[in-house]
Amino acid sequence: MKLPFTSVEYRRRLANTKARMEKAGIDVLFASDPANMNYLTGYDGWSFYVHQMVIVAQDEPEPLWVGRPMDANGARVTTWLDHGNIYEYPDHFVQSTKHHPMDLVADIANERRWARKRIGVEMDAYYFTGACIDRLRKKLPRVRFKDATGLVNWVRIVKSRRELQYITEAARIAEKVMRTGIDHVRPGLRQCDAAAEIWRTGVRGTREFGGDYPSLPPMLPTGAGISAPHLTWTDEKFRKGQGTVLELAGVRLHYHCPMARTVFLGTPPKKMVESAKVVVEGLETALAAMKPGATAHEVEAAWRAVISRHGIVKESRIGYSTGLNYPPDWGEHTISLRPGDRTVLETNMVLHCIPAIAMDDWAIELSECVRVTRRGGIPFCKFPRRLFVKR
Amino acid sequence: MKLPFTSVEYRRRLANTKARMEKAGIDVLFASDPANMNYLTGYDGWSFYVHQMVIVAQDEPEPLWVGRPMDANGARVTTWLDHGNIYEYPDHFVQSTKHHPMDLVADIANERRWARKRIGVEMDAYYFTGACIDRLRKKLPRVRFKDATGLVNWVRIVKSRRELQYITEAARIAEKVMRTGIDHVRPGLRQCDAAAEIWRTGVRGTREFGGDYPSLPPMLPTGAGISAPHLTWTDEKFRKGQGTVLELAGVRLHYHCPMARTVFLGTPPKKMVESAKVVVEGLETALAAMKPGATAHEVEAAWRAVISRHGIVKESRIGYSTGLNYPPDWGEHTISLRPGDRTVLETNMVLHCIPAIAMDDWAIELSECVRVTRRGGIPFCKFPRRLFVKR
Repeated sequence: MKLPFTSVEYRRRLANTKARMEKAGIDVLFASDPANMNYLTGYDGWSFYVHQMVIVAQDEPEPLWVGRPMDANGARVTTWLDHGNIYEYPDHFVQSTKHHPMDLVADIANERRWARKRIGVEMDAYYFTGACIDRLRKKLPRVRFKDATGLVNWVRIVKSRRELQYITEAARIAEKVMRTGIDHVRPGLRQCDAAAEIWRTGVRGTREFGGDYPSLPPMLPTGAGISAPHLTWTDEKFRKGQGTVLELAGVRLHYHCPMARTVFLGTPPKKMVESAKVVVEGLETALAAMKPGATAHEVEAAWRAVISRHGIVKESRIGYSTGLNYPPDWGEHTISLRPGDRTVLETNMVLHCIPAIAMDDWAIELSECVRVTRRGGIPFCKFPRRLFVKR
Repeated sequence: MKLPFTSVEYRRRLANTKARMEKAGIDVLFASDPANMNYLTGYDGWSFYVHQMVIVAQDEPEPLWVGRPMDANGARVTTWLDHGNIYEYPDHFVQSTKHHPMDLVADIANERRWARKRIGVEMDAYYFTGACIDRLRKKLPRVRFKDATGLVNWVRIVKSRRELQYITEAARIAEKVMRTGIDHVRPGLRQCDAAAEIWRTGVRGTREFGGDYPSLPPMLPTGAGISAPHLTWTDEKFRKGQGTVLELAGVRLHYHCPMARTVFLGTPPKKMVESAKVVVEGLETALAAMKPGATAHEVEAAWRAVISRHGIVKESRIGYSTGLNYPPDWGEHTISLRPGDRTVLETNMVLHCIPAIAMDDWAIELSECVRVTRRGGIPFCKFPRRLFVKR
């Protein structure tokens, strides 16, 4: 199987991770975030429903992979690792009340004499459960565990040329996906039927390259549910007089290009039409501010200045870093475009800027996924920036 | 919004959970497994990418819901709870390095004077991270935390009439999904295109009721990748001379009916054809053994007796309990059909029996999702049980 990146690129990622570990005073890193596992080794598979781990040690030339036997087969196919670095725990460890996969991780640590090392664990990463840390502490009583949540995520933050290429391909898919979504929000069609067409378009991709599963399903909150953005589709039909927010993505080899647009069936409230213009103005102002050297805080402030001029106040963040990911989230959990985030933007960071204005019975969401450049944030997609009204 | 179950049914679930808590010596339960949250309150939303929780206390008449403000809107729409029992943490707690959503959970515990109670937490549930338990321990130093992993899962194990109805509806979708899958595994078609059609069919559902997103994506390991069952699709084309395992599901309101079948393009190896017959025989023998009073261990032994008569040895489990679920798994994490699992089967448990025989370059997988009855396991689906050969 051909890996999506050269081994040179994987080794560079490893070196960058080790440098960051060094700075954080970490000798060995246990990474269980599936995106971090993929980033470091290439490992790909829907196997994060059982415990698995990539281990990076300062004195090891390669990461180690730890997982279930049937997934070790996948690791041998999808990673650049020497097969001697792929470790399997017995299948009866899976969902056992007696054994735990972390027992094997502890055994590996003991064998390699890491008992007194400083070991970093991703304390708040998905799939690294309370039981994982308790088991590790019990089995490795002398180890000093340090919280390394986000360590590899921060290594991922500036994208390589090849990564940008995949996000660009994802953007071609995202445009098709959004077009499909807007076409299928129409009176009398069931929400599930629109969602079905959106999934299909995203997974097919283009003639040149296929699509992948997104880390969040198509979100299409509509009507009264519009202020609860994480409800998914129902069997209800779209109706005249209702707005629908489409929050979708194109995905290529787990690299995401998200996009949000809003559709209204019938004649939208005047206030909604005006707000759409404010959102577009605010979004474009925020994008213009996304230059290397600016902070995340300043980008949000640029947006906030526009909306407050229109008498609008908004409290949640207006964007975040994105790229490689697995369910349940395509956000990278690093930069948040919100007050107080002092991260300094750099060229080739990728951000999803998704401002919204929500009232009780309608909402406007309109986003762009952009690359940070000296000319500001350059969108990956070419898609009209407006409220889509279907009368 | 109409809830999928009556409030009588939700209250019965709550009473059963409290009874099990009592037995386990637990005064208060913190449940963060999305399926458990849904089961107890009706809460539905793709919001498990941020921390959230349902709290059940022996001395409270209703559960409490804790989450992000925008998801609290969803909770007000999708749960049977009094809105006074819905708690929001500030949006800036999301992915913060300073604040943590468990701070609010701890505040609620302190307000309600649970400081010396025995509190159960789902230590090994997805999304209950190491940081969650550490934060709770820090903020509630006098609490005795007990591991309540699986407690609500075990309450879920016998299905109600309405639950069985939803799984029956999911079965109608599963049949369509599998038919679509088999039709689209054909030489020259890209794997991603087949996956796209499978997704579409599953989400559309039937004319009478829509489908939902499955907790695992369509799995279609093919060719050399067939021994790595959790790889997902690629852009590669299906080719003559290759087998493909389809592991799919129909889903209705988050209730799953999974199904696996195997397709071969061209003339299959003789050994594979023979193995398919063994798998069918073994599966049917296992189903016949699934009567109330039998143990999970005995069901597996019935399968094992058949295959060992044919000189075959297989090590991983051949099935598990299923039903309501959210990504990343549709398994319920209770019963495993494997040696040593002494769970006694009861009427109206639902099991996915998925035996397989795998060699280096091919595999046969063939499954049924069944209801336990006095006549043995009765499949929800009507679908031919054989190796599908397309010449």
